[in-house]
Amino acid sequence: MAAWGERLAGVRGVLLDISGVLYDSGEGGGRPIAGSVEAVARLKRSGLRVRFCTNESQKSRGRLVGELRRLGFDVSEAEVTAPPPAACRLLQERGLRPHLLVHDEVRSEFDQIDTSNPNCVVIADAGEHFSYRNMNRAFQVLMGLADPVLISLGKGRYYKETSGLMLDVGGYMKALEYACGVEAEVVGKPSPEFFRSALRELGVEAHQAVMIGDDIVGDVGGAQRCGMRALQVRTGKFRPSDEHHPEVKADGYVDNLAEAVDLLLLHADK
Amino acid sequence: MAAWGERLAGVRGVLLDISGVLYDSGEGGGRPIAGSVEAVARLKRSGLRVRFCTNESQKSRGRLVGELRRLGFDVSEAEVTAPPPAACRLLQERGLRPHLLVHDEVRSEFDQIDTSNPNCVVIADAGEHFSYRNMNRAFQVLMGLADPVLISLGKGRYYKETSGLMLDVGGYMKALEYACGVEAEVVGKPSPEFFRSALRELGVEAHQAVMIGDDIVGDVGGAQRCGMRALQVRTGKFRPSDEHHPEVKADGYVDNLAEAVDLLLLHADK
Repeated sequence: MAAWGERLAGVRGVLLDISGVLYDSGEGGGRPIAGSVEAVARLKRSGLRVRFCTNESQKSRGRLVGELRRLGFDVSEAEVTAPPPAACRLLQERGLRPHLLVHDEVRSEFDQIDTSNPNCVVIADAGEHFSYRNMNRAFQVLMGLADPVLISLGKGRYYKETSGLMLDVGGYMKALEYACGVEAEVVGKPSPEFFRSALRELGVEAHQAVMIGDDIVGDVGGAQRCGMRALQVRTGKFRPSDEHHPEVKADGYVDNLAEAVDLLLLHADK
Repeated sequence: MAAWGERLAGVRGVLLDISGVLYDSGEGGGRPIAGSVEAVARLKRSGLRVRFCTNESQKSRGRLVGELRRLGFDVSEAEVTAPPPAACRLLQERGLRPHLLVHDEVRSEFDQIDTSNPNCVVIADAGEHFSYRNMNRAFQVLMGLADPVLISLGKGRYYKETSGLMLDVGGYMKALEYACGVEAEVVGKPSPEFFRSALRELGVEAHQAVMIGDDIVGDVGGAQRCGMRALQVRTGKFRPSDEHHPEVKADGYVDNLAEAVDLLLLHADK
């Protein structure tokens, strides 16, 4: 592999995944990953552009940012690109009225959306709300539509909470796809459109940006397909086999966000 | 299409799907499909061999047969081929100790199986037991195994209850496959091994047998791949689009089991 100086040359902006990079979510608000609070602060002081790009769809952005701030992170709602606002734009553009299979915490993000007489289904990481009854209701709505539309906020396989690995929305998306014979539209990483909107908000070109995440497919592969560079951290849901993934090779693997920031401060184009 | 006489020539044995063909399951034991009680009786009197071949994995065979008998059907446990006993044979042959994600009703079918220190996961149509907590536990067991084995009792997309269409085990199988990066082994229709064991129990060769079911893929396609003929009934989960399925074409479509039996009594090789 090329030297870090070469790999990070010309980087002017950084997209940071949140869960598994900044903190592990969980009971009581989760806990920060060692060194990440300081790493974010150093990054922000460095002159590099910084934005947070998350597939979090179980909490509202307000709640997420509140939790992160309580853990000591310097982050505001305006700095976070997350699937619910992107989904709302898509629903409004296409005149879609969703049946929502989402966590109560995130329902308020859809307050401005007409949900009467649904003509599509939106699923997010609903956690405990992924009951058989709720899944069956979403299934029945889709089966009742002549042209079923399923929108999934991300398609993650799993994430890491303080209590262990947890099923993410992706599996439930696959369940509905299979049962209904449809293909979901994904709003969130690794959708290129989602990365491009985060890049616009970051204000740099793809070749000037690096994504830092714990998901080899959703973060690293997705960002690379948009022309960005991407580093995988060995925290969160990282597993050693990720470094030998058959399809995706990160531009670098680092132990944690703190190491990534050390390298960026040395080599990026501040 | 050829005349019925040609299509049913040489048939000596009949495999009957249960749910959606004999009855629609549901609250209070479900209700028989019009004409099916008499159709089963006429078929049994005809001299044709008859066996029931079901993917039912939410109830024990004893409970299922009890419900059917209360509805008036002439059926005994010994006449039913169902996934749980086949799964038990497979587990014992391979020394597998399952973590069971199954309905309480069917747990007793696994009484003779060692479930300590699980080295595989078995999922069945668990209905309300497909909670997030239970799915996550099955996921965590699989992720903890060096060589994860997932066994699914059937892979149906959905079935019809008296209250409407209901998600079957297939979607949940897909969810775990996706989240864990594994491919499930299916015990039940449309697995060729399962059809072959039903044929052995029926006591006729594949070319002498006809399957009657409401599932164009699981019943019709699966039986045809084993060299059997197969009819689809327009009851249960049947949908008009099934008659134009891109991959599977039944040897005939009939309004219900009663019509199938009328035709068999006229044309089969009794």
